[in-house]
Amino acid sequence: MAIREKAFNTIIQCFKRHGAETIDTPVFELKETLTGKYGEDSKLIYDLKDQGGELLSLRYDLTVPFARYLAMNKITNIKRYHIAKVYRRDNPAMTRGRYREFYQCDFDIAGQFDPMIPDAECLKILHEILSELELADFLIKVNDRRILDGIFAVCGVPDTKFRTICSSVDKLDKTLWEEVKIEMVEKKGLASEAADQIGEYVQNNGGLDLIEKLLKDPKLSQNKLALEGLNDMKILFQYLELFGVTDKISFDLRLARGLDYYTGVIYEAEESVRLGSVAAGGRYDGLVGMFDPKGRKVPCVGFSIGMEKIFSIMERKAESSIEKIRLTETQVLVAAAQKKLLEERMKLIAELWKAGIKAEMLYKKNPKLLNQLQYCEESGIPLVAIIGEQELKDGVVKLRDVSTREEVDVCRQNLVEEIRRRTSQF
Amino acid sequence: MAIREKAFNTIIQCFKRHGAETIDTPVFELKETLTGKYGEDSKLIYDLKDQGGELLSLRYDLTVPFARYLAMNKITNIKRYHIAKVYRRDNPAMTRGRYREFYQCDFDIAGQFDPMIPDAECLKILHEILSELELADFLIKVNDRRILDGIFAVCGVPDTKFRTICSSVDKLDKTLWEEVKIEMVEKKGLASEAADQIGEYVQNNGGLDLIEKLLKDPKLSQNKLALEGLNDMKILFQYLELFGVTDKISFDLRLARGLDYYTGVIYEAEESVRLGSVAAGGRYDGLVGMFDPKGRKVPCVGFSIGMEKIFSIMERKAESSIEKIRLTETQVLVAAAQKKLLEERMKLIAELWKAGIKAEMLYKKNPKLLNQLQYCEESGIPLVAIIGEQELKDGVVKLRDVSTREEVDVCRQNLVEEIRRRTSQF
Repeated sequence: MAIREKAFNTIIQCFKRHGAETIDTPVFELKETLTGKYGEDSKLIYDLKDQGGELLSLRYDLTVPFARYLAMNKITNIKRYHIAKVYRRDNPAMTRGRYREFYQCDFDIAGQFDPMIPDAECLKILHEILSELELADFLIKVNDRRILDGIFAVCGVPDTKFRTICSSVDKLDKTLWEEVKIEMVEKKGLASEAADQIGEYVQNNGGLDLIEKLLKDPKLSQNKLALEGLNDMKILFQYLELFGVTDKISFDLRLARGLDYYTGVIYEAEESVRLGSVAAGGRYDGLVGMFDPKGRKVPCVGFSIGMEKIFSIMERKAESSIEKIRLTETQVLVAAAQKKLLEERMKLIAELWKAGIKAEMLYKKNPKLLNQLQYCEESGIPLVAIIGEQELKDGVVKLRDVSTREEVDVCRQNLVEEIRRRTSQF
Repeated sequence: MAIREKAFNTIIQCFKRHGAETIDTPVFELKETLTGKYGEDSKLIYDLKDQGGELLSLRYDLTVPFARYLAMNKITNIKRYHIAKVYRRDNPAMTRGRYREFYQCDFDIAGQFDPMIPDAECLKILHEILSELELADFLIKVNDRRILDGIFAVCGVPDTKFRTICSSVDKLDKTLWEEVKIEMVEKKGLASEAADQIGEYVQNNGGLDLIEKLLKDPKLSQNKLALEGLNDMKILFQYLELFGVTDKISFDLRLARGLDYYTGVIYEAEESVRLGSVAAGGRYDGLVGMFDPKGRKVPCVGFSIGMEKIFSIMERKAESSIEKIRLTETQVLVAAAQKKLLEERMKLIAELWKAGIKAEMLYKKNPKLLNQLQYCEESGIPLVAIIGEQELKDGVVKLRDVSTREEVDVCRQNLVEEIRRRTSQF
């Protein structure tokens, strides 16, 4: 938890820096709210037992509850983050950070705005967070559903096959084109020639140069949807340059994303060394309307960070580090050098607590000084405030630095300030 | 959430001041872990549907999962807090802060220590938290299961009826003694004389004086269990005096607490004006042993704060306050005085984010200055950094104070520092 809190703090600070508020939604939703949102993966939803009353399921992600919340409360404009656990009846793979209960960290901007400005800020935030978390290295791939659909159209894919061909394309990050083509042709009944044409388009990646090239493509530039997507992508990359983040962002036509609800820009962040995808998102302008009785739409764009993979990196780093992770923030242990000083320790520690100092004492009537010092070594407490008969008589406290073992007598009335001064770096 | 986070921060700061670490446990436990721990209230447990695999239930509180966690990980010594949601299939009463999903805030000290030192610190922490949350007024009632059991014994209650008579006593906070006596005699078959004797004992409350009086009671002082409880209560009150918290703590023989697992000191904190019980706890030395294959015991003492009632007070306070609660922490809005300055706004806001300034801009290409200023008023942003053609030419930014409407030109390289200086009070 000490490591996790560090990661959460980094992320929350970034969200707050970008003016986001936070919301909370219940851990369960009505079963019907989740139905039909996750395609094949719906089988992974945890249902609650029917004990009378509504049929409920544990949330599968934070995006659908967010859209339901917006529709239910008629909110048309919000920038919010939400850090919470989601639930999937999946096969856990602990070493790869895959669990049945896991944290997601979502950021979304809802509302009708000028093109690509919120989309660019989402990518800027994701770039900031992944940089600040000090992952080994990362790359954010960006694409647009409209560009993909335009490519499918100009390559002769029938409308009804757009989504299934799209999910084949999505496999290109792990599978060779040859295999994907076989799936398209043999499993999904696409003409071999159409598949070849798709292959020529989707195996490209780059930046503004690639966008410009596609905008001049004789076929693609005639397709309204593709043109819209490409023009927006151009604007997006201009904004990303102004934000100074194009170093780690790549326009990648292979990126397709599994979920059905994306309607525009899509993106996925990968940690390059061993984790693979750590965050993903995109624009979903139709989801909120699915929960509104009148179908009123609220355009949304956002992303989810899969925290468990990030925790697993940070935990590995912490394990291999020489410095022990502290589980508490205690600044000082109140200790006694002799017996029969429990009451004096209690008086002193109450003074320290009152002044806001983080202080502990051993729950023993007459602890040995050695045991008290050992406790500090084990739990990383940097200071010990030691009292004995003589110190009490002199109105001082012996303040010991645990690492250097230096001791100095401090006037009782200066003790709080001295502890603060010595632990201000924490 | 803005109000809730404020409450959580107050509480977490206090836990950290007392050297606690935090843990997390899953939202569901094996169904069998929860079975037989909550008496009659077990019917309120939410079960998950049997979709294959283990039978699971949503956690009902944080104490049983904590005890299970200690036993499973063979932890014999920990001071931890845990803030999380628990689930009860109860009738919600929103105005009184009773929900089916609600936050509990638990603090517990596990381990074998000298008598009453951790118990006293729990009460000290509870006293600090309730004081810092600025509840109208509160009182913490303290009793000990051993004293109650001793009273039952000397009044002639048969051993088998201890727990049921105990739950009758627990009703004394809401019911007159006459009615409780009728329940004991008519429903539970206790001799009327025995009930009368119990009534004389349990209708007392006080402090060290009452403890001293009971220690001299000819009958009670002969009962081993009662004597143990009274001697510990005396030590506890001595420690509480050293901690300076006896002003709001009362030794109250009517307090009995419903749950079966308490074995020593028990306590309950009441907000006096309208909420009733807001926190409760006690010592439970046997619970961890129930989850250990060899029955190894780990003594524990702690408390739970029911957060929803506390939120409901804070929300009411916030509603009646003139000052609007801010949902974000944004320090400055980056605004443009003329059209066609989106790129310049983006460059400036990226500079501010990089310096750690919390900054927003409107997601419009050409927002009107008035709309930008209105946005600040509505969301409580204190400063606006305005750029126009002239400012860009002069290398300055016009910094406007939203509340006073004063504007001053600030050199671009001094902007970050000036924003920090002006918003340092937040």
